[in-house]
Amino acid sequence: MTRFTNPVLADIRAAAARIAPYARVTPVMCSEALDELAGASMYFKCEHLQRGGAFKFRGACNAVWALAEDDARRGVVTHSSGNHGAALALAARTRGIPAHIVVPEGAVAAKLVNIERAGGTIHRCAPTQAAREETCARVQRETGATLVHPYADARVMAGQGTIIPELLQQVPDLNVVITPVGGGGLISGCAIALRALAPAVGIFGAEPAGADDALQSLQRGQRVTDTVPDTICDGLRATIGVPNLALLRELRVEVIAVEDAATLAAMRLLWSELKQTIEPSSAVVLAALLKVRERFAGKRVGVVLSGGNVDVDSPAFAARH
Amino acid sequence: MTRFTNPVLADIRAAAARIAPYARVTPVMCSEALDELAGASMYFKCEHLQRGGAFKFRGACNAVWALAEDDARRGVVTHSSGNHGAALALAARTRGIPAHIVVPEGAVAAKLVNIERAGGTIHRCAPTQAAREETCARVQRETGATLVHPYADARVMAGQGTIIPELLQQVPDLNVVITPVGGGGLISGCAIALRALAPAVGIFGAEPAGADDALQSLQRGQRVTDTVPDTICDGLRATIGVPNLALLRELRVEVIAVEDAATLAAMRLLWSELKQTIEPSSAVVLAALLKVRERFAGKRVGVVLSGGNVDVDSPAFAARH
Repeated sequence: MTRFTNPVLADIRAAAARIAPYARVTPVMCSEALDELAGASMYFKCEHLQRGGAFKFRGACNAVWALAEDDARRGVVTHSSGNHGAALALAARTRGIPAHIVVPEGAVAAKLVNIERAGGTIHRCAPTQAAREETCARVQRETGATLVHPYADARVMAGQGTIIPELLQQVPDLNVVITPVGGGGLISGCAIALRALAPAVGIFGAEPAGADDALQSLQRGQRVTDTVPDTICDGLRATIGVPNLALLRELRVEVIAVEDAATLAAMRLLWSELKQTIEPSSAVVLAALLKVRERFAGKRVGVVLSGGNVDVDSPAFAARH
Repeated sequence: MTRFTNPVLADIRAAAARIAPYARVTPVMCSEALDELAGASMYFKCEHLQRGGAFKFRGACNAVWALAEDDARRGVVTHSSGNHGAALALAARTRGIPAHIVVPEGAVAAKLVNIERAGGTIHRCAPTQAAREETCARVQRETGATLVHPYADARVMAGQGTIIPELLQQVPDLNVVITPVGGGGLISGCAIALRALAPAVGIFGAEPAGADDALQSLQRGQRVTDTVPDTICDGLRATIGVPNLALLRELRVEVIAVEDAATLAAMRLLWSELKQTIEPSSAVVLAALLKVRERFAGKRVGVVLSGGNVDVDSPAFAARH
């Protein structure tokens, strides 16, 4: 884990300025049919239309451009099941530096393609946290590359947090914001920005029931690390980071866990009603919102659709039901 | 067929003003990855994000609001395998008048749902042109509703043509525009607007090889009506209309026919790269462009994505390959 102190609003502002030449201001979409279904006004922040197809580019880009020139030259390294790796490779390319991506076996093919297409060097490893970290450490020793952790990294968290000032400018008077929770980089950055900019707005995280370590950790009052993720949400299998969990608690983020079946149904709704290709790890937010819809009734909800990198040919989607 | 004279630019301008309170100005999207693949700069006009999920709302809305009050009160009727029917029902609802939609057996379920959701009354019939027309005529007799033909109708053509002034304002200096061809309402309206507003822009139509009656008709110099459509592009099975064919010839529209396999591959590209849910009847344009990519090399191409109403659960998509 990278050593750091939590970012504050000024870091998020600085990140926004740093990534502005490279990242997209993503659009906000709405659907009358989905609003009717949810009984709420939903404003979908379309991070699947971000460069690389996921919000991850924001954090990766901020981390890459925050490096001193001497460090930058030796490149960056990370471990990632997909979107963060592709985002880091893409961000490294904007600065013309090498990117090494440690990828566990079993990663989604569409995400591997994105890493290669962005010019990243892929290092395969076993699908365990230990193997990921060992391989990362070896690449660091061999290349001198800087580790850019996918979520327990202040620069990454600040980058992900840039979604919020954008969203608040696009949609005034939100009552609630909901984002997915995996390692916790996205929700941490967003929660910091929201508490500073719009303290009255409620913050919810959505997590797959098959990888609900954040929810369990909040309930037990200590970080749960012995869960074995079992979910179709490939982007949300990571264990919540130490600083990320501390922030969730401190900033009073409520986490909702949902079954994969509900997430797949929500994904189909987003595909058919919003006409957007959304990955399961993003659809989990709509599933969570529909699960406890009475909590959101009549509210103006900012819904962060975090990514759209699915294997459209995968049997998981062919057999979806 | 409805009696009419071809619309001109003034009719398209009037249609744009008439539908402005109800229709959406759809966004234009781009993809570096798809541009690289095609060797051209493509500007995707996102009519799948139009109300009802297809461009059809433009024409239907223009037809509904062009009716005199006395006629309007008795409602409208049409036959449609889906998108035009849903669009007409939706348009009728904006004016608070009844809509009767004659739907042949075998229509896409997602499109039927859209008709019902918009408050349209569905009349089922056999999947032949004769059965469609007979059922329509019966409903007309019984209700006094006005027929709004899906494509051989000047008000409908003018409505569809409103895409072009929008697109030209969004993207300057286009070299080429390509749209799908079914009955020919979309391409007719667009061709009229383009010849008037940007006469140097090339106009292409894309058609499934399994329903290439427009291409055959242009080649033989007479309207071919004896083809039996066999294509996954459910929105493009109609026979090219008489006035529509005359306009294609007069305005020098070139038609490209593509196999369904290429269309499905193009659809997957649009899903995965543009992150948009596009129906096969729309993906046909990208397939056509890729088929003869040397013709479009280096050009700035306006690509009309006409609709996004697919059954995401349909076996045709589950088994796509």
